Amino acid sequence: MTDRAYELRPIAWVESSLVDLEVAPKQGDEGAPDADLVFNPGVADGIKDLRVGQEIIVLTWLDRARRDVLVLHPRGDERNRRRGVFSTRSPDRPNPIGLHRVEIIAIDGCTIRVRNLEALDGTPVIDVKPILEPIGDR
Amino acid sequence: MTDRAYELRPIAWVESSLVDLEVAPKQGDEGAPDADLVFNPGVADGIKDLRVGQEIIVLTWLDRARRDVLVLHPRGDERNRRRGVFSTRSPDRPNPIGLHRVEIIAIDGCTIRVRNLEALDGTPVIDVKPILEPIGDR
Repeated sequence: MTDRAYELRPIAWVESSLVDLEVAPKQGDEGAPDADLVFNPGVADGIKDLRVGQEIIVLTWLDRARRDVLVLHPRGDERNRRRGVFSTRSPDRPNPIGLHRVEIIAIDGCTIRVRNLEALDGTPVIDVKPILEPIGDR
Repeated sequence: MTDRAYELRPIAWVESSLVDLEVAPKQGDEGAPDADLVFNPGVADGIKDLRVGQEIIVLTWLDRARRDVLVLHPRGDERNRRRGVFSTRSPDRPNPIGLHRVEIIAIDGCTIRVRNLEALDGTPVIDVKPILEPIGDR
Protein backbone atom coordinates (compact mmCIF):
# COMPACT_ATOMS: atom_id res chain seq x y z
CA MET A 1 0.00 0.00 0.00
CA THR A 2 1.33 3.42 -0.94
CA ASP A 3 0.11 7.01 -0.96
CA ARG A 4 0.39 7.14 -4.71
CA ALA A 5 -2.15 9.31 -6.56
CA TYR A 6 -3.32 9.00 -10.16
CA GLU A 7 -4.19 11.66 -12.71
CA LEU A 8 -7.56 11.70 -14.43
CA ARG A 9 -7.77 13.55 -17.73
CA PRO A 10 -11.31 14.36 -18.90
CA ILE A 11 -12.31 12.90 -22.27
CA ALA A 12 -15.45 15.04 -22.63
CA TRP A 13 -17.60 17.64 -20.89
CA VAL A 14 -21.31 17.78 -20.12
CA GLU A 15 -23.40 20.52 -21.74
CA SER A 16 -26.70 20.61 -19.90
CA SER A 17 -29.48 22.93 -18.81
CA LEU A 18 -28.73 21.79 -15.23
CA VAL A 19 -26.67 24.54 -13.65
CA ASP A 20 -27.94 24.69 -10.10
CA LEU A 21 -26.68 22.03 -7.69
CA GLU A 22 -29.50 22.75 -5.24
CA VAL A 23 -32.31 21.84 -7.61
CA ALA A 24 -30.56 19.10 -9.57
CA PRO A 25 -32.26 15.68 -9.45
CA LYS A 26 -30.45 13.04 -7.38
CA GLN A 27 -30.79 10.34 -10.04
CA GLY A 28 -31.35 10.24 -13.80
CA ASP A 29 -34.83 8.76 -13.41
CA GLU A 30 -35.96 11.68 -11.25
CA GLY A 31 -36.48 14.21 -14.02
CA ALA A 32 -32.94 14.83 -15.27
CA PRO A 33 -32.81 16.50 -18.69
CA ASP A 34 -31.24 15.25 -21.90
CA ALA A 35 -27.65 16.50 -22.20
CA ASP A 36 -24.73 16.63 -24.61
CA LEU A 37 -21.37 14.97 -24.07
CA VAL A 38 -18.85 17.05 -26.00
CA PHE A 39 -15.76 14.92 -26.57
CA ASN A 40 -12.22 16.14 -26.88
CA PRO A 41 -11.36 15.73 -30.61
CA GLY A 42 -8.23 13.87 -29.48
CA VAL A 43 -10.35 10.86 -28.44
CA ALA A 44 -12.60 10.84 -31.55
CA ASP A 45 -11.35 7.38 -32.61
CA GLY A 46 -12.49 5.97 -29.27
CA ILE A 47 -16.17 6.91 -29.79
CA LYS A 48 -16.48 5.91 -33.45
CA ASP A 49 -18.43 2.69 -32.76
CA LEU A 50 -21.04 4.22 -30.45
CA ARG A 51 -24.53 4.18 -31.98
CA VAL A 52 -27.86 5.97 -31.49
CA GLY A 53 -30.21 3.80 -29.42
CA GLN A 54 -27.37 2.15 -27.50
CA GLU A 55 -27.27 2.21 -23.69
CA ILE A 56 -23.95 3.21 -22.17
CA ILE A 57 -22.44 3.84 -18.78
CA VAL A 58 -21.03 7.35 -18.46
CA LEU A 59 -18.53 8.02 -15.68
CA THR A 60 -18.18 11.63 -14.61
CA TRP A 61 -15.98 13.54 -12.17
CA LEU A 62 -18.40 15.45 -9.94
CA ASP A 63 -16.13 18.44 -9.62
CA ARG A 64 -18.44 20.43 -7.35
CA ALA A 65 -18.66 17.68 -4.71
CA ARG A 66 -16.92 17.66 -1.34
CA ARG A 67 -14.09 15.14 -1.00
CA ASP A 68 -13.72 15.34 2.79
CA VAL A 69 -17.07 13.73 3.64
CA LEU A 70 -17.18 10.12 4.94
CA VAL A 71 -20.56 10.05 6.72
CA LEU A 72 -23.76 11.87 5.73
CA HIS A 73 -27.55 11.91 5.73
CA PRO A 74 -28.58 10.17 2.47
CA ARG A 75 -30.17 12.51 -0.09
CA GLY A 76 -29.29 15.47 2.17
CA ASP A 77 -32.37 14.71 4.28
CA GLU A 78 -31.75 14.87 8.03
CA ARG A 79 -34.61 12.43 8.64
CA ASN A 80 -32.43 9.72 7.06
CA ARG A 81 -29.91 8.33 9.53
CA ARG A 82 -26.27 9.15 8.87
CA ARG A 83 -24.50 6.53 6.78
CA GLY A 84 -21.00 5.86 5.55
CA VAL A 85 -20.63 7.41 2.08
CA PHE A 86 -19.74 4.08 0.47
CA SER A 87 -23.27 2.89 1.33
CA THR A 88 -24.78 5.88 -0.49
CA ARG A 89 -24.81 7.38 -3.98
CA SER A 90 -23.97 10.86 -2.67
CA PRO A 91 -21.66 12.90 -4.92
CA ASP A 92 -19.75 13.87 -1.78
CA ARG A 93 -17.06 11.17 -1.32
CA PRO A 94 -13.24 10.90 -1.46
CA ASN A 95 -13.21 10.35 -5.24
CA PRO A 96 -16.44 11.96 -6.52
CA ILE A 97 -17.13 9.70 -9.49
CA GLY A 98 -20.63 9.73 -10.96
CA LEU A 99 -22.04 6.61 -12.61
CA HIS A 100 -24.85 7.18 -15.09
CA ARG A 101 -26.65 4.63 -17.26
CA VAL A 102 -28.06 6.51 -20.24
CA GLU A 103 -29.31 5.98 -23.80
CA ILE A 104 -27.66 7.68 -26.77
CA ILE A 105 -30.29 9.70 -28.66
CA ALA A 106 -28.13 11.55 -31.23
CA ILE A 107 -24.55 11.72 -32.46
CA ASP A 108 -23.07 14.69 -34.34
CA GLY A 109 -19.31 14.47 -34.81
CA CYS A 110 -17.75 14.62 -31.35
CA THR A 111 -21.04 15.51 -29.63
CA ILE A 112 -23.18 12.70 -28.25
CA ARG A 113 -26.64 13.49 -26.89
CA VAL A 114 -27.95 11.26 -24.10
CA ARG A 115 -31.25 10.95 -22.28
CA ASN A 116 -31.80 11.90 -18.62
CA LEU A 117 -28.32 12.75 -17.37
CA GLU A 118 -28.14 13.95 -13.75
CA ALA A 119 -24.90 15.92 -14.10
CA LEU A 120 -24.38 19.68 -13.97
CA ASP A 121 -23.35 21.73 -16.99
CA GLY A 122 -19.55 21.67 -17.29
CA THR A 123 -19.05 18.35 -15.47
CA PRO A 124 -16.00 16.45 -16.80
CA VAL A 125 -16.62 13.02 -18.35
CA ILE A 126 -13.87 10.52 -17.56
CA ASP A 127 -15.00 7.28 -19.23
CA VAL A 128 -17.75 5.67 -21.32
CA LYS A 129 -18.43 1.93 -21.29
CA PRO A 130 -20.96 -0.23 -23.13
CA ILE A 131 -23.54 -2.17 -21.17
CA LEU A 132 -22.20 -5.73 -21.23
CA GLU A 133 -23.80 -8.02 -23.78
CA PRO A 134 -23.21 -11.74 -24.28
CA ILE A 135 -19.54 -12.63 -24.66
CA GLY A 136 -19.58 -12.83 -28.47
CA ASP A 137 -20.56 -9.18 -28.72
CA ARG A 138 -18.02 -7.72 -26.29
CA MET B 1 -13.55 23.16 -21.89
CA THR B 2 -10.14 23.16 -20.22
CA ASP B 3 -7.15 20.86 -19.96
CA ARG B 4 -7.63 20.54 -16.25
CA ALA B 5 -6.69 17.21 -14.64
CA TYR B 6 -8.01 15.73 -11.40
CA GLU B 7 -6.26 13.72 -8.73
CA LEU B 8 -7.52 10.30 -7.69
CA ARG B 9 -6.46 9.08 -4.26
CA PRO B 10 -6.97 5.33 -3.68
CA ILE B 11 -9.28 4.41 -0.81
CA ALA B 12 -8.26 0.72 -0.75
CA TRP B 13 -6.13 -1.88 -2.48
CA VAL B 14 -6.95 -5.30 -3.92
CA GLU B 15 -5.32 -8.36 -2.37
CA SER B 16 -5.85 -11.23 -4.78
CA SER B 17 -4.29 -14.45 -6.04
CA LEU B 18 -4.48 -12.87 -9.53
CA VAL B 19 -1.00 -11.63 -10.30
CA ASP B 20 -0.56 -12.36 -14.00
CA LEU B 21 -2.24 -9.99 -16.47
CA GLU B 22 -1.91 -12.55 -19.27
CA VAL B 23 -4.03 -15.21 -17.61
CA ALA B 24 -6.46 -12.96 -15.75
CA PRO B 25 -10.14 -13.42 -16.65
CA LYS B 26 -11.69 -10.59 -18.68
CA GLN B 27 -14.82 -10.40 -16.53
CA GLY B 28 -15.80 -11.41 -12.99
CA ASP B 29 -18.15 -14.13 -14.23
CA GLU B 30 -15.33 -15.84 -16.14
CA GLY B 31 -13.63 -17.50 -13.21
CA ALA B 32 -12.25 -14.57 -11.22
CA PRO B 33 -11.28 -15.46 -7.65
CA ASP B 34 -12.58 -14.03 -4.40
CA ALA B 35 -10.41 -11.14 -3.25
CA ASP B 36 -9.87 -8.75 -0.35
CA LEU B 37 -10.34 -4.99 -0.48
CA VAL B 38 -8.01 -3.57 2.17
CA PHE B 39 -9.21 -0.07 3.01
CA ASN B 40 -7.09 2.82 4.15
CA PRO B 41 -7.91 3.26 7.87
CA GLY B 42 -8.52 6.94 7.11
CA VAL B 43 -11.78 6.06 5.29
CA ALA B 44 -13.05 3.54 7.89
CA ASP B 45 -16.13 5.67 8.68
CA GLY B 46 -17.15 5.51 5.03
CA ILE B 47 -17.46 1.70 4.98
CA LYS B 48 -19.17 1.24 8.35
CA ASP B 49 -22.62 0.54 6.87
CA LEU B 50 -21.53 -2.10 4.35
CA ARG B 51 -22.88 -5.56 5.17
CA VAL B 52 -22.10 -9.18 4.31
CA GLY B 53 -24.42 -10.41 1.56
CA GLN B 54 -24.77 -6.96 0.00
CA GLU B 55 -23.96 -6.37 -3.67
CA ILE B 56 -21.77 -3.37 -4.40
CA ILE B 57 -20.09 -1.70 -7.33
CA VAL B 58 -16.33 -1.46 -6.91
CA LEU B 59 -14.44 1.04 -9.04
CA THR B 60 -10.75 0.36 -9.54
CA TRP B 61 -7.86 2.13 -11.22
CA LEU B 62 -6.38 -0.45 -13.60
CA ASP B 63 -2.85 0.77 -13.08
CA ARG B 64 -1.23 -1.73 -15.45
CA ALA B 65 -3.38 -0.71 -18.43
CA ARG B 66 -2.23 1.42 -21.38
CA ARG B 67 -3.71 4.92 -21.51
CA ASP B 68 -2.70 5.71 -25.10
CA VAL B 69 -5.03 3.21 -26.80
CA LEU B 70 -8.20 4.45 -28.56
CA VAL B 71 -8.91 1.55 -30.95
CA LEU B 72 -8.34 -2.18 -30.35
CA HIS B 73 -9.42 -5.74 -31.04
CA PRO B 74 -11.97 -6.58 -28.30
CA ARG B 75 -10.73 -9.16 -25.78
CA GLY B 76 -7.29 -9.00 -27.42
CA ASP B 77 -8.53 -11.36 -30.14
CA GLU B 78 -7.48 -10.32 -33.65
CA ARG B 79 -10.48 -12.14 -35.11
CA ASN B 80 -12.67 -9.43 -33.54
CA ARG B 81 -12.75 -6.29 -35.68
CA ARG B 82 -11.04 -3.22 -34.24
CA ARG B 83 -13.36 -1.01 -32.23
CA GLY B 84 -13.20 2.32 -30.45
CA VAL B 85 -12.30 1.69 -26.79
CA PHE B 86 -15.47 3.38 -25.51
CA SER B 87 -17.46 0.57 -27.17
CA THR B 88 -15.43 -2.06 -25.29
CA ARG B 89 -14.70 -3.03 -21.70
CA SER B 90 -10.95 -3.20 -22.33
CA PRO B 91 -8.78 -1.99 -19.43
CA ASP B 92 -6.71 -0.08 -22.00
CA ARG B 93 -8.36 3.38 -22.29
CA PRO B 94 -7.52 7.01 -21.49
CA ASN B 95 -8.74 6.70 -17.89
CA PRO B 96 -8.42 2.99 -17.04
CA ILE B 97 -11.29 2.66 -14.58
CA GLY B 98 -12.56 -0.83 -13.80
CA LEU B 99 -16.23 -1.37 -12.91
CA HIS B 100 -16.99 -4.52 -10.92
CA ARG B 101 -20.32 -5.68 -9.50
CA VAL B 102 -19.53 -8.02 -6.61
CA GLU B 103 -21.04 -9.49 -3.45
CA ILE B 104 -19.54 -8.89 -0.01
CA ILE B 105 -18.78 -12.27 1.61
CA ALA B 106 -16.89 -11.20 4.76
CA ILE B 107 -15.92 -8.06 6.66
CA ASP B 108 -13.04 -7.90 9.16
CA GLY B 109 -12.22 -4.37 10.28
CA CYS B 110 -10.98 -2.48 7.24
CA THR B 111 -10.79 -5.63 5.07
CA ILE B 112 -13.79 -6.54 2.94
CA ARG B 113 -13.81 -9.85 1.08
CA VAL B 114 -15.76 -9.98 -2.19
CA ARG B 115 -16.69 -12.72 -4.62
CA ASN B 116 -15.29 -13.03 -8.15
CA LEU B 117 -13.22 -9.87 -8.60
CA GLU B 118 -11.37 -9.59 -11.92
CA ALA B 119 -8.63 -7.25 -10.69
CA LEU B 120 -4.93 -7.94 -10.22
CA ASP B 121 -3.25 -8.04 -6.82
CA GLY B 122 -2.26 -4.52 -5.82
CA THR B 123 -4.87 -2.73 -7.95
CA PRO B 124 -6.01 0.55 -6.34
CA VAL B 125 -9.69 0.86 -5.41
CA ILE B 126 -11.08 4.35 -6.00
CA ASP B 127 -14.76 4.10 -5.02
CA VAL B 128 -17.47 1.77 -3.73
CA LYS B 129 -21.17 2.34 -4.39
CA PRO B 130 -24.28 0.42 -3.38
CA ILE B 131 -26.50 -1.11 -6.02
CA LEU B 132 -29.46 1.30 -6.18
CA GLU B 133 -32.55 0.18 -4.33
CA PRO B 134 -35.96 1.88 -4.21
CA ILE B 135 -35.78 5.55 -3.22
CA GLY B 136 -36.68 5.01 0.45
CA ASP B 137 -33.59 2.88 0.95
CA ARG B 138 -31.05 5.13 -0.74
